[in-house]
Amino acid sequence: MSSETTPPARGRGRPRRADADEQILDAALSMLRDGGYRQLSLDEVARRAGTAKSSIYRRWPSKAALAAEIVRRETPLPESSDLDSSVRAFESLLNGALGGVMASLIGEAQESAETRTIVIALIEPYRQLVRRFADDETTNGLLGALLFRRLLSG
Amino acid sequence: MSSETTPPARGRGRPRRADADEQILDAALSMLRDGGYRQLSLDEVARRAGTAKSSIYRRWPSKAALAAEIVRRETPLPESSDLDSSVRAFESLLNGALGGVMASLIGEAQESAETRTIVIALIEPYRQLVRRFADDETTNGLLGALLFRRLLSG
Repeated sequence: MSSETTPPARGRGRPRRADADEQILDAALSMLRDGGYRQLSLDEVARRAGTAKSSIYRRWPSKAALAAEIVRRETPLPESSDLDSSVRAFESLLNGALGGVMASLIGEAQESAETRTIVIALIEPYRQLVRRFADDETTNGLLGALLFRRLLSG
Repeated sequence: MSSETTPPARGRGRPRRADADEQILDAALSMLRDGGYRQLSLDEVARRAGTAKSSIYRRWPSKAALAAEIVRRETPLPESSDLDSSVRAFESLLNGALGGVMASLIGEAQESAETRTIVIALIEPYRQLVRRFADDETTNGLLGALLFRRLLSG
């Protein structure tokens, strides 16, 4: 009970900032799952993670950057040894649990050059996966067909 | 100079409301050309067209609906007698003078069901044009490849 008591060790050697980052990511993931990208609010993420908004901005410069990292973590790039499974990886990105977030990010990318850069970086590994088995034109057609259906089907 | 002088005939038999509509469309087109969809403001369109904002809403329920009508008027569906020219019609829609407006509308459609309906209706005739020469899967691939490049290229 002395005021000199040292605080309990936090996560045994895990840096404090990494803890905060995980709490931010957890809070944001939960918000994305519940209400999609539109409902994601960095003020609310900070509140739930018990951190300052500046701690979020220290690592993620924007809401889009934070959402993109979550999509990346939650949709790990699969091993793929053929064209079909490579195309299906992109399909999972667009139509999986966070597919709505992807669509929102692609939407925002049409008005924000910064978000566009983030989205292109997010999609690029999937494009490269397919690109190993097909030329550029075919790759665009295969991925584009999925995009067309996701973004524009009634 | 008598107060009984009748006002001059407006456009000889052209209804007054049609005149106002044309002025609204002209003002909006000019704004879209100058600053794209993001800069389009219905307040400013009303000011330039010398009309009330309610006159815009009487005919177009939203900014997206007004922009879509302008895209439709400025990008008339071409005659097309083969697959190639049909695909190029869609390419012109995406990459022509108002292609940026199209991209913005597709972007907004990811967050607004109403805009989604408008965009689907705008694109549908182009899809049908291609669809005459190819099955659904191929059509999606051909149009999607253009969409992929337009929305997601670096």
